Amino acid sequence: MDLNQIQVDLAKFAHDRDWDQFHSVRNLGLALMGEVGELAELLQWVDDNDVSKFLAAGGRERLGEELADILFYLVRIADVGGVDLSSAVQSKFEENSSKYPVGKSKGNSKKYDELG
Amino acid sequence: MDLNQIQVDLAKFAHDRDWDQFHSVRNLGLALMGEVGELAELLQWVDDNDVSKFLAAGGRERLGEELADILFYLVRIADVGGVDLSSAVQSKFEENSSKYPVGKSKGNSKKYDELG
Amino acid sequence: MDLNQIQVDLAKFAHDRDWDQFHSVRNLGLALMGEVGELAELLQWVDDNDVSKFLAAGGRERLGEELADILFYLVRIADVGGVDLSSAVQSKFEENSSKYPVGKSKGNSKKYDELG
Amino acid sequence: MDLNQIQVDLAKFAHDRDWDQFHSVRNLGLALMGEVGELAELLQWVDDNDVSKFLAAGGRERLGEELADILFYLVRIADVGGVDLSSAVQSKFEENSSKYPVGKSKGNSKKYDELG
Repeated sequence: MDLNQIQVDLAKFAHDRDWDQFHSVRNLGLALMGEVGELAELLQWVDDNDVSKFLAAGGRERLGEELADILFYLVRIADVGGVDLSSAVQSKFEENSSKYPVGKSKGNSKKYDELG
Repeated sequence: MDLNQIQVDLAKFAHDRDWDQFHSVRNLGLALMGEVGELAELLQWVDDNDVSKFLAAGGRERLGEELADILFYLVRIADVGGVDLSSAVQSKFEENSSKYPVGKSKGNSKKYDELG
Repeated sequence: MDLNQIQVDLAKFAHDRDWDQFHSVRNLGLALMGEVGELAELLQWVDDNDVSKFLAAGGRERLGEELADILFYLVRIADVGGVDLSSAVQSKFEENSSKYPVGKSKGNSKKYDELG
Repeated sequence: MDLNQIQVDLAKFAHDRDWDQFHSVRNLGLALMGEVGELAELLQWVDDNDVSKFLAAGGRERLGEELADILFYLVRIADVGGVDLSSAVQSKFEENSSKYPVGKSKGNSKKYDELG
C-alpha cells in the first residue's frame, strides 16, 4: 500500500467529518501517543518467550490494529505539518545507511556514535 | 512510497547488520516508544499558535526525521510480528468508516461510541 | 521524600527561572512523554534475562535519573493542573483495592473487569 | 504523601496478589507507557485555550487518576529495579540546579547546553 494514497484517503476522511479543526500537529501528536500507549498495553505482560504464542492466539490481529492506528496519526501529522513523508523516509534510510556501516555495526545494538 | 518496499528494505538493513537477534516485537516496541518520545520533545514547548513558524524555521525537517524513525520501527514490528500491514491498514480504515459515519461524526471530536 | 515537598521545590525552581509561561498542562504532558521515551530507550535492547546485569553495570543509576525526570514533570502537571496528587494517589489506591480483590486477582495479570 | 510509603504499600499490594511474577522492570515500563498513553488521550483534543474549562468540567479528576496510575508504575519500577527514588530525586534536582542556573535560564525554554 502506498503512503501517499493513505495520506489522501485520511485527508478526505477527516475533511468529510469536518475534523480538520481538531487536527493540529500537537493534537495529532498526542493522539498518536495515545495509540502508542495501547501498543504498550498490548505487550506489557507478554513474556519475551511467549510472544509467538501470544501472536498466534489473536495477538497478531490486535497488533495489526494498533500499528494501523499509529500509522494513521503518523501520516496525518505529516500531511498537516507539510512533511513529504516518502522523501523523509528516503533521506532517513540513506542517513542510517551511512551512520551504521555494515562492518562496524554488525551484531552490535549500540549506536554507532557511541562506538567511537 | 510503498509500505511493502519499506518493509523489504528495512529487513535487509537489519539482516545485513546481524540485528535480527535484537529485533523482537517488544524490543522494537520500546524502540518505537523511544522515537515517539523524541517527537514529543520536539513539540513540547511549541505553542499551538507558533506551529507554522516552528515548521518554517527548520521544524518541518526535524518533524520528518522523527516521523520516519517512528515509521521504521512500526514497519519492523509488523514484519517481525507477522502482521500484513497493508491489510491491517485497509481493515482499520473500513472499521473507522463504519464507526464514525459522516452524519453523526461531523465536527465532533468525541468518539462515536461515546455519543450513543 | 514527600510529594508535596517536591511539588513546592519544583514550583520555586520554575518560578525562579520564569518558566511558568512554558508550563501549561499540555506542554508539561509532552515533556513527560519525552522523558518516558528516554526510559523506553534505556530498556529497549535489554533482554529480559539480562536486566540484573544491566542494572548492576550502571543501568540502575541511569534508571533512577529517568524515573526522577518523569516524576518531576508528573508533579508539575499536578501542580499546574490544580490536582491534589496525594489525594489522587489515595483514591486510586482504594479504587484498585476494590477493583482487584485479592481472591480473584491472585496470580492473574488480566484486568479484573475482563475476568467477569 | 511519602514516596517510600507509596512504595511499601504498592509492594504489599502486588505481593498479596502474587503479581511479583509479572512485575519485571520492562513489563512495568511498558505498563507505565500504557498509562502515559491514557494521559495523552485525555489531553489530545483539548485546545490550549480551553484547558481551564476542561479541568473544571471533570477533567481535573480524570487528570488526577491518570497521574496516580503513572506514579504507581514509576514507583514499582524503582522498587523492582532497586532504585532509591528519593535519592534519585534529590540528585536530579541538584543536577538541574547547576545545569540551569537562574541567570542564564531565565525566561528561556531552551536547554542550557544548547545555549552555549
